[in-house]
Amino acid sequence: MALTTANKEIVDKAVKAIHERIFYAQYPEHPKAYGEDAPGKGQSAYNSQLGKPFNGLLQQNPVAWEGEEVSPYTMKSLGVTYPVFEVDTLIVRAGRAFDAWRHVSVEDRAEILVDALEKIKYRFFEIAYATQHTTGQSFVMSFQASGPHASDRALEAMAMGYEELQRFPGNVTWEKPMGKVSVKLQKEFKPVPKGISLAIGCSTFPTWNSVPGIFASLITGNSVIVKPHPKSVYPIAIVVAEIQNALKAKGIDTNVCQLAVDSSKNLIAKTLAKHPLVKLIDYTGGSEFGDYIESIPGKTTFTEKAGVNSVILDSVADLKTVAQNLGFAVSLYSGQMCTAPQNIFIPAGGIKQGDKTISYEEVKSALTEAISGLSSHPQMGPGTLGAIQSEITLKRVNSAKDLDAKVLLAPAKVANAEFPEARTSSPIVLEVDAKDKGIYENELFGPIVLIIKTKDTAQSVELAKDMVAKHGAITCSAYSTDEATAKMITDEMESVFAPVSLNLTGVIWVNQHAGFSDFHVTGGNPAGNASFTNPEYVNKRFVWVGHRRGV
Amino acid sequence: MALTTANKEIVDKAVKAIHERIFYAQYPEHPKAYGEDAPGKGQSAYNSQLGKPFNGLLQQNPVAWEGEEVSPYTMKSLGVTYPVFEVDTLIVRAGRAFDAWRHVSVEDRAEILVDALEKIKYRFFEIAYATQHTTGQSFVMSFQASGPHASDRALEAMAMGYEELQRFPGNVTWEKPMGKVSVKLQKEFKPVPKGISLAIGCSTFPTWNSVPGIFASLITGNSVIVKPHPKSVYPIAIVVAEIQNALKAKGIDTNVCQLAVDSSKNLIAKTLAKHPLVKLIDYTGGSEFGDYIESIPGKTTFTEKAGVNSVILDSVADLKTVAQNLGFAVSLYSGQMCTAPQNIFIPAGGIKQGDKTISYEEVKSALTEAISGLSSHPQMGPGTLGAIQSEITLKRVNSAKDLDAKVLLAPAKVANAEFPEARTSSPIVLEVDAKDKGIYENELFGPIVLIIKTKDTAQSVELAKDMVAKHGAITCSAYSTDEATAKMITDEMESVFAPVSLNLTGVIWVNQHAGFSDFHVTGGNPAGNASFTNPEYVNKRFVWVGHRRGV
Repeated sequence: MALTTANKEIVDKAVKAIHERIFYAQYPEHPKAYGEDAPGKGQSAYNSQLGKPFNGLLQQNPVAWEGEEVSPYTMKSLGVTYPVFEVDTLIVRAGRAFDAWRHVSVEDRAEILVDALEKIKYRFFEIAYATQHTTGQSFVMSFQASGPHASDRALEAMAMGYEELQRFPGNVTWEKPMGKVSVKLQKEFKPVPKGISLAIGCSTFPTWNSVPGIFASLITGNSVIVKPHPKSVYPIAIVVAEIQNALKAKGIDTNVCQLAVDSSKNLIAKTLAKHPLVKLIDYTGGSEFGDYIESIPGKTTFTEKAGVNSVILDSVADLKTVAQNLGFAVSLYSGQMCTAPQNIFIPAGGIKQGDKTISYEEVKSALTEAISGLSSHPQMGPGTLGAIQSEITLKRVNSAKDLDAKVLLAPAKVANAEFPEARTSSPIVLEVDAKDKGIYENELFGPIVLIIKTKDTAQSVELAKDMVAKHGAITCSAYSTDEATAKMITDEMESVFAPVSLNLTGVIWVNQHAGFSDFHVTGGNPAGNASFTNPEYVNKRFVWVGHRRGV
Repeated sequence: MALTTANKEIVDKAVKAIHERIFYAQYPEHPKAYGEDAPGKGQSAYNSQLGKPFNGLLQQNPVAWEGEEVSPYTMKSLGVTYPVFEVDTLIVRAGRAFDAWRHVSVEDRAEILVDALEKIKYRFFEIAYATQHTTGQSFVMSFQASGPHASDRALEAMAMGYEELQRFPGNVTWEKPMGKVSVKLQKEFKPVPKGISLAIGCSTFPTWNSVPGIFASLITGNSVIVKPHPKSVYPIAIVVAEIQNALKAKGIDTNVCQLAVDSSKNLIAKTLAKHPLVKLIDYTGGSEFGDYIESIPGKTTFTEKAGVNSVILDSVADLKTVAQNLGFAVSLYSGQMCTAPQNIFIPAGGIKQGDKTISYEEVKSALTEAISGLSSHPQMGPGTLGAIQSEITLKRVNSAKDLDAKVLLAPAKVANAEFPEARTSSPIVLEVDAKDKGIYENELFGPIVLIIKTKDTAQSVELAKDMVAKHGAITCSAYSTDEATAKMITDEMESVFAPVSLNLTGVIWVNQHAGFSDFHVTGGNPAGNASFTNPEYVNKRFVWVGHRRGV
C-alpha cells in the first residue's frame, strides 16, 4: 500500500495550506456542496438510528450497551446505545494495535486517514443531526462545525504530522574525514511513536475539538482511545466508525482507534488517563479536570480548558456595525463556544467615533440593544443562539442575577417555532465596575455577558491582560481606530499569548478560527497548553531516535 | 542591522546540515586549524587569569566576588573569582532585557549570536585550559568538547530556531469567498518568546551541555540567566562574556545573557528556578534535582539527567577490536560522560565469532585486559582517562568494591607524568549476575563498569530495555553479526527511546554524539526530557500567536 494519487494530492495541498495560511478548505462549508440527496439521506440515517444500538463500530464483545444522550431541542432521549468495554480491555486492545500501527509507514497511515476523512464526508448530514441533538447547536452550525470544519482541522493536524515525520532523512551515510582515513557510519533516523493516546471529548463540540488530537496521534503512529462526553457520543462515534472501516479495508487492526463510552454514573476518564500505558492525552473541558490531566506525571498532554475572553472597546469607525458584530459574537450558540467573548471593557469616558465621543451609556445601550434585538428575532434568534446543552449552564444563567451586578438585560426563553420544548436562554447582560474583579474573573460559561466600566483603555488592557495571565483566554477582540493604541493592545495581549482580533465587523466574528490558518488556542496561557495546529502539537507525540552502525 | 553575508552563509549551511544529517562541522575539531600562535595565546590568557577576578563580563555592581574552582590535575585552587549578584537583581535585569530582546528581529538575533560564536572561536584554547582544570578532562577532550563541538551544538540549536521562527509567514491576507462577496482579514503570525530562561550547568561539561539551551533560548527571543556549577565556571564565563560583547557591539542590553555565579555554601539554582518570571529551564545534572526541576508547575523544562547505559554483546566479527573499542569507551574521561557505557551484558553461553563460540570467561578477560591495558599505558592512560572531577566520584569508585559484586579489576591511580598530583582512578570492573538488579540498576557515575552474566541475548535485551524504561539511558551499544538479532535489539531499544550504536569498532565510540547529525538524548526516557536538537527543543521556547484585523 502507499498514498494513492488522489489522497496524496489532498495531503500535499493541506501541507501547502498550513504553510501559506491563506484561505483553504478541503471540505466546503456549505451544505449544498454535498449533493441534493445528501440532506435527506443524512436525516433518514439519523432517524433510523434513534432508539437503537449504534452498530457501526468494529469493537467486539462489549460488556454492556449504554447511552444517555438527550436532545436539548426536544428534551427527549435519543435512545441510542453504544457498546461499553472494560478499561483493561480497551488498554490491552490499544496496546496490541499499537505494536502493529507503529510499524506501518507514514505514507500508509496517511492513506488510511485520508480514506477515513473521505468517507466521513458522506456522513456530514447525519453527523450534523447527531451534533444538533446532543450539543444544542443550530443545524447550520452543527453541520459546519462537526462536518467540514472538523474534517479540515483533522486534515490539518494530519498534514502537520505528515510533514514533521519526514523532516529528517530515514537513512544517511555519515562519513567523517580523519586525515588520510575516514570514519563511516550508517545512520537511521526514526520518529518513534509514544504509545497509547487518549482523547477526552467535551459535550459542546464533540468532533471539532477531538478530531485534531485523534488524527495527530494516529498519523504519528500512536493508537487512540476516544472517550467522548457521555451526553455527546453519536457524532464522534460516526467518525471512529469510519476510521475503523478505513483500517479494516487495509487489513489493519481496527483497535488502532477505539471508542470508549462511559456513563455519568461510571466515568472512566480518570482511570484511563492514569493508566501507565497511556502516554498521550488530548483533553477539552473544564479547567479543574484539565489541570488534573496536566499534572499526571509521565504524560504528554494537550489541553483546552476554560478561559475568560475579553473585548476591549477603545474607538470605532461605526458603533452600530461594531455592536451588531459583538451582539452576534456573544449570542452565537448561546456563548457556549470557548472563543465567545465574555467581558466587554468600556472606558467610563466613552469611546471615539471619528471626531466625536460616544458616551459610555450610549455604547452600553447599543450593545444591549444589539443583543436583545438578535435573541428576540423570530428567525435569527433561534438560528443563532441554538439551545443550551446542559441544565447546569441554564442554571448558571438564571442565577447570574445574584452576582451582585446590575442586570442590564434579563435572560429569557428564546422562542423556537420548530422546537417549542427547546432548552434556551437569551444572554443575561450584567454591568460591573473595574474593581469588581471577583465577579468577572470567573469563566461564566454560557450566555452571560459582562460590561465592565474602566477608567480608560489603558486600564481595560491591563485588566484584560491580567485575566489572560491568571485565568487564560482563547480570544481577545479589540476595537481601535488609533494605530498606536491598536499596537499597544496587540503587544500587551501577545505578551500573555492571547491573539487579538482587531476591528471585526460584518460577517466575520472573533469566535471563528479557520483551519489551515488560525492557531486555535495558543498554548501559552492557562486556557490550554496546546494549539491547533502548531508543530509542537504533533512533535510531542513521537520521539526522534537515531541508530548508528559501523560500516 | 541584519544578517551579514558571512553570517548568513554560516546559518544557511547549518540549517542545511541539520536537515541532511551527514557529517558537518562549522568549527574544525583539530587544534591545528586555529593557527600556530593560538595555543600559546590561549595558554597565556589562561595563566594570566589564574588568581584574579574574571573581568570579562558586562554586568555592573556585583555584591561580591567569589570562586571555588580547583584543578583536578594540580589539586590547587584556580583562584579565579566571579561577580556575584542577588537573585532579584538578576531577574529584574533579565526581565528588562527581555522586553527589548523580544522585539529584536530573528535576523538580528541570528547576526549577534553568530558574531558571538565567531569571537568564541578565538578563545577555544583558553576555554580548553579552563575546561581541563575544572572538569578533569584531558586537554584534547577539553579543547574539542568545550570548543568546536560545543560551538557546533550551539550553532545547530540556533539554526533550528532560526528555521522554526520563520516556519509560517509573518503577514498574510486571508480572503474567504462567500458567494458574491468575500471576507478579508489581514493576519499576522508571531513567534512570541516565553520570557526569562535559566540554564543550569554541570561540572563535567560546562559549555557543551549548556550552550545549546542558551543559544536556543536566545534565538527564540528569551533572555537567559546562566547558572554554572560553582566548580566549573570559567569555561562558560568566557562564552557569556563573548555573547555580551556581541550584544554590546550592536547596542543591545547586555543583560540579555547574564552569568549567575553561586557558591557551594549558597546555591541559588532552586530560587532562580522557582521564580515566577522564569519560564524556561535548561538543566544538566543528577536525576533527583532534575526531577524536581521538571516538577515545578508552569515551567517549560529541558533536562538531561542520569541514565544507565548498556552494552549488549551477542556476536562479533572480531572480539579483539570490540574489546578495544569498549575498553576505550568506558575509560574515556573516566566514565564521566553521560554517554559512557556502564552495564555490559554477556550471555553465560558466550558469544559467536563467525562459526566458533567464544566462552563467557574469554569475553570477560578480553574486556578487562583491554581496560587495564589502556589505563596502565603511560601515554594513552592519562590522555584517555583524564582526571576525576570530584572527590565524591572518587569515593564512589573506591567504595564500589563493597557492592556485593565480584571485583574483576580493582581501581588504581593512573600515573600522570605531567600532573603527579592529579585525582585519578582506573576503572573498577565488577561482575554480577542478571538477578542482581539492585546493584546494576543504579547509575554509578565515574569509572565503574559492570559485567552482567545473562541467560542469553534475549535476556540481555530485556534487562537493558528494563533499565532504560525505569532509569533512563542516553546510549546503547550492541554487537551482533546476525541481522535478525540486530533488528530485534534495535526495535526493542527504540520502543523505550534509546538509540542503538551497532558494531562500533576502530576510532568511533558510542560516547560520541556528532552535532548536526546525532540527536543527543532522545527525550523519551527518564534520562532526560529534551534532545539536542530536535524541533521541539526550540519550539517549546516560544508560542505562535496569530493576530487578525478586519480589512
